[in-house]
Amino acid sequence: MNQIDFRTEPSRYRHWKIEPDGDIAYLVMDVDPAGGLSADYELKLNSYDLAVDIELNDAVQRLRFEHPEVRAVVLKSGKENVFCAGANIRMLGKATHGHKVNFCKFTNETRLAIEDACEHSKQSYLAAVAGACAGGGYELALSADHIMLIDDRRSAVSLPETAMLAVLPGTGGLTRVTDKRKVRRDLADVFCSVEEGVRGKKAVDWRLVDEIIAKTKWNDAVKARAAEIAARSDRPNNAKGIKLEPLDRNISGDTITYANVRVEIDRERSLATISVKGPSSAIPSTIEAAHALGSKFWPLATARELEDAILHLRFNEAKIGVIVFRTEGDAKAVLDHDTFLGQHQNDWLMREIRHYLKRVFKRIDVTARSFVTLVEPGTCFAGTLAELIFASDQSLMLIGRRDGDNRPPAAIILGEANFGFYPMGNGLTRLQSRFLGEPESIDRAREKIGEIIEAEKASALGLVTFTYEAFDWDDQQRIMFEERVAYSPDALTGMEANLRFAGPETMETKIFGRLTAWQNWIFQRPNSVGEQGALKLYGSGIQPTFDKERI
Amino acid sequence: MNQIDFRTEPSRYRHWKIEPDGDIAYLVMDVDPAGGLSADYELKLNSYDLAVDIELNDAVQRLRFEHPEVRAVVLKSGKENVFCAGANIRMLGKATHGHKVNFCKFTNETRLAIEDACEHSKQSYLAAVAGACAGGGYELALSADHIMLIDDRRSAVSLPETAMLAVLPGTGGLTRVTDKRKVRRDLADVFCSVEEGVRGKKAVDWRLVDEIIAKTKWNDAVKARAAEIAARSDRPNNAKGIKLEPLDRNISGDTITYANVRVEIDRERSLATISVKGPSSAIPSTIEAAHALGSKFWPLATARELEDAILHLRFNEAKIGVIVFRTEGDAKAVLDHDTFLGQHQNDWLMREIRHYLKRVFKRIDVTARSFVTLVEPGTCFAGTLAELIFASDQSLMLIGRRDGDNRPPAAIILGEANFGFYPMGNGLTRLQSRFLGEPESIDRAREKIGEIIEAEKASALGLVTFTYEAFDWDDQQRIMFEERVAYSPDALTGMEANLRFAGPETMETKIFGRLTAWQNWIFQRPNSVGEQGALKLYGSGIQPTFDKERI
Repeated sequence: MNQIDFRTEPSRYRHWKIEPDGDIAYLVMDVDPAGGLSADYELKLNSYDLAVDIELNDAVQRLRFEHPEVRAVVLKSGKENVFCAGANIRMLGKATHGHKVNFCKFTNETRLAIEDACEHSKQSYLAAVAGACAGGGYELALSADHIMLIDDRRSAVSLPETAMLAVLPGTGGLTRVTDKRKVRRDLADVFCSVEEGVRGKKAVDWRLVDEIIAKTKWNDAVKARAAEIAARSDRPNNAKGIKLEPLDRNISGDTITYANVRVEIDRERSLATISVKGPSSAIPSTIEAAHALGSKFWPLATARELEDAILHLRFNEAKIGVIVFRTEGDAKAVLDHDTFLGQHQNDWLMREIRHYLKRVFKRIDVTARSFVTLVEPGTCFAGTLAELIFASDQSLMLIGRRDGDNRPPAAIILGEANFGFYPMGNGLTRLQSRFLGEPESIDRAREKIGEIIEAEKASALGLVTFTYEAFDWDDQQRIMFEERVAYSPDALTGMEANLRFAGPETMETKIFGRLTAWQNWIFQRPNSVGEQGALKLYGSGIQPTFDKERI
Repeated sequence: MNQIDFRTEPSRYRHWKIEPDGDIAYLVMDVDPAGGLSADYELKLNSYDLAVDIELNDAVQRLRFEHPEVRAVVLKSGKENVFCAGANIRMLGKATHGHKVNFCKFTNETRLAIEDACEHSKQSYLAAVAGACAGGGYELALSADHIMLIDDRRSAVSLPETAMLAVLPGTGGLTRVTDKRKVRRDLADVFCSVEEGVRGKKAVDWRLVDEIIAKTKWNDAVKARAAEIAARSDRPNNAKGIKLEPLDRNISGDTITYANVRVEIDRERSLATISVKGPSSAIPSTIEAAHALGSKFWPLATARELEDAILHLRFNEAKIGVIVFRTEGDAKAVLDHDTFLGQHQNDWLMREIRHYLKRVFKRIDVTARSFVTLVEPGTCFAGTLAELIFASDQSLMLIGRRDGDNRPPAAIILGEANFGFYPMGNGLTRLQSRFLGEPESIDRAREKIGEIIEAEKASALGLVTFTYEAFDWDDQQRIMFEERVAYSPDALTGMEANLRFAGPETMETKIFGRLTAWQNWIFQRPNSVGEQGALKLYGSGIQPTFDKERI
């Protein structure tokens, strides 16, 4: 398969249109049947594949950065009689297990990004459902704050996956039905096991949608509701968006270079090293200057590049088992940028950047690779960049210096950013998750904000996993990487998915933990993916044959 | 395979010994290598299979009911140099997917029963670990309130599953490491990826065990610590246990008959009907009389029979997709028994019975079958038995009477039992989980305690899913059952596992949701169960070959 590229922009969209109208924007889904990632299937009836979702992800992102004046987004269909038919089944039927799993993860992240925009940017989504809204289509609607359904005796919402395809509504559907819409359990069970779905008043009574509207009043009602939602938003007046300029990426052999991020792939060892450069210039002198920098402003540029690198490795480098984080540059410049973000936290753009960085770190949390951070002389693990240590499964720190290296010893510097800028999906900061058993360690760490913390102190504070002297460093590292990549990739995926999320669960962690894990199991079961399975036979006219054993 | 029987008693144990010593009991694991369920494998080094765990489950249960004088249970090994080597790998290697999954579920329930005894009966477990304590062995120790490790430079705790077997420590191991022991995430990662485990002071520093004790002081220290734990218990003095008499069960063709429970299997339709009889006699006149009834006391007898029926269906009737609950008898007698349980809630035995009923209902919650309750004339869905409705995925209630049936119309009667006796694994009552989106419905239901609620009112109160008149009843029921069993069993399992647990997650729901789901996925992956997989090749001397793709 060709490499999957996540970079796009509205002028290149084939499936979506952003139509701003004052403080409302219409996000119109109008899928080009021939515009899928592969020619093996046609994207009929507004069904989607990854190509469609890459554009949606981009649109959600651009609405936040390029259209700060938008307070309500109306998610609607550009086609008659269908809102969205969900993920394309032929695509799922032909996809490898790995692609299915990665596709679902990405689409889940996109829907969570919609919810993040509603909650944290008060750029609220309204799903205006006219026509069939099935499976992934209803799951998309579920990500909105408010769901309107046209009452035309035909349009219905449905989750027919179990009945029709022998899989789950795995893009958050089951979890949002129980935990967001809070549908009564037995009604949820009926709804999820009935192919044709629910329409009209029953859809409201069962809490599946928020309101139904007669066909004659539909357009006006949607517009009025959007205006009402927009009026409740706290977004600033007269905010002027910034342009997310095309990401400058250069892939040459096994090296990928961006302005602030570099990825080096070592296939022999199944390793990829992501190096993040600290800011090369001082903070902007004013908030206006930061806006003028736009997508060149270091925290934003770095977030975009890091995100692209992670997604690239996920989809295009499946055999790379371990991702190593390094940094290089000036720790003080990183901290200055954090301070700038903190000081201007009420500026809409600075707020967006922080939430975006939060989402990028969350992408790391749910990436099925082992992450290891190496803290050495010359690195700048401070504040936001120190968060990479706490997002890693393990971290190694060099004690002192190497012979002939005159740079100061490796150091970590904590900043306010580590104590609340970037909560994980479980609602805790990474330090809170880390120190669940010893909350006093968080206070101890907080007292050290701004201090240079060298290896032995970092170890005593519980900030790194191992510290080694120079003479041990190379061997210990080599052994650790060799062992890690020798283990079963599946066992590591399952282990990490459990160990990374201590403490409370949220709808978000339930989606990636409970729902996704069950879906992945089902995606391996002959009843769905076997030669006689429902996904394989879909559309063939042949009924699947199920092994009736209940497990 | 022969039918699996969960009924046992200490005189028949081959693997465990209960050794009471005043208010302490030693629960000694001394597995008979030849005593497994199958002759295909030998249970070396205190490794276990289902046969061993059936006895453990029985022992934990009998300690609560037959030994109320016991305040601290010391979990120890009867073998030199090994505490427990975990689940037997050859058994896992040869087991079907279904058996592996059911085995793990049952062992998880047993460990949760140990925690339930610690928390709710103040019969606290102490794991005295001398010798190797690996995988499921450490997971067993993790279920105890307190873990002591002998400091002999050799004994270690370990979770080598990922490194050695390409599977997870799936009996709660990963979840208890993060959420109960609250081990720091990166240390947990190291611990779970290191075959040899951790011993001595490091095991304490990493929070893996509570204390280490030098070999010379071991026996005295264990005894002293057990005495100290016993002294903290609130258990009554001079309580005299009751005997759990052998369950009287008769299997004849497709009918299983107990004193209060009957199971009828309809293989053609993949249905099993469990009918529970209400009490046939009035409540005991005094609490002493209830003790004298012992395991014949209706709530206890019914709990035991219902539990046995559920476990039997899980393990021995895999192709039965739907379980139907019915009741018959006198609703008032059920409510009287609930009232009796409530009035004597400080009596140790009544307390045990309530917690036991709670655990039986929880077994239903995690059973991978669809549950449907039928409420018809002649049934007695009141209080404790009404809980079966709320534990079901759907419920159907008949409106009015059938021609020629002179009994009163079907009715539900709510009791205090439905508002707090039996919390689910998520910490909520079933009514709280049911009405997560409309908490006012709980208050409305509570106002109806003791009232006869017929079908239309039950529907208006949200207590049942569907109500049908007599002329519709048979058809609607037939269609529903036919549809249900036509769906993919796997998709239903995943769907139900998601829909049944709305709202908060606890360590318990995380074990059955997140951890178990991932383990089930891994149990389907070629890297563990393929011909070249780690489970298959274990002990052969041949290294497994892994597909290196990370998913």
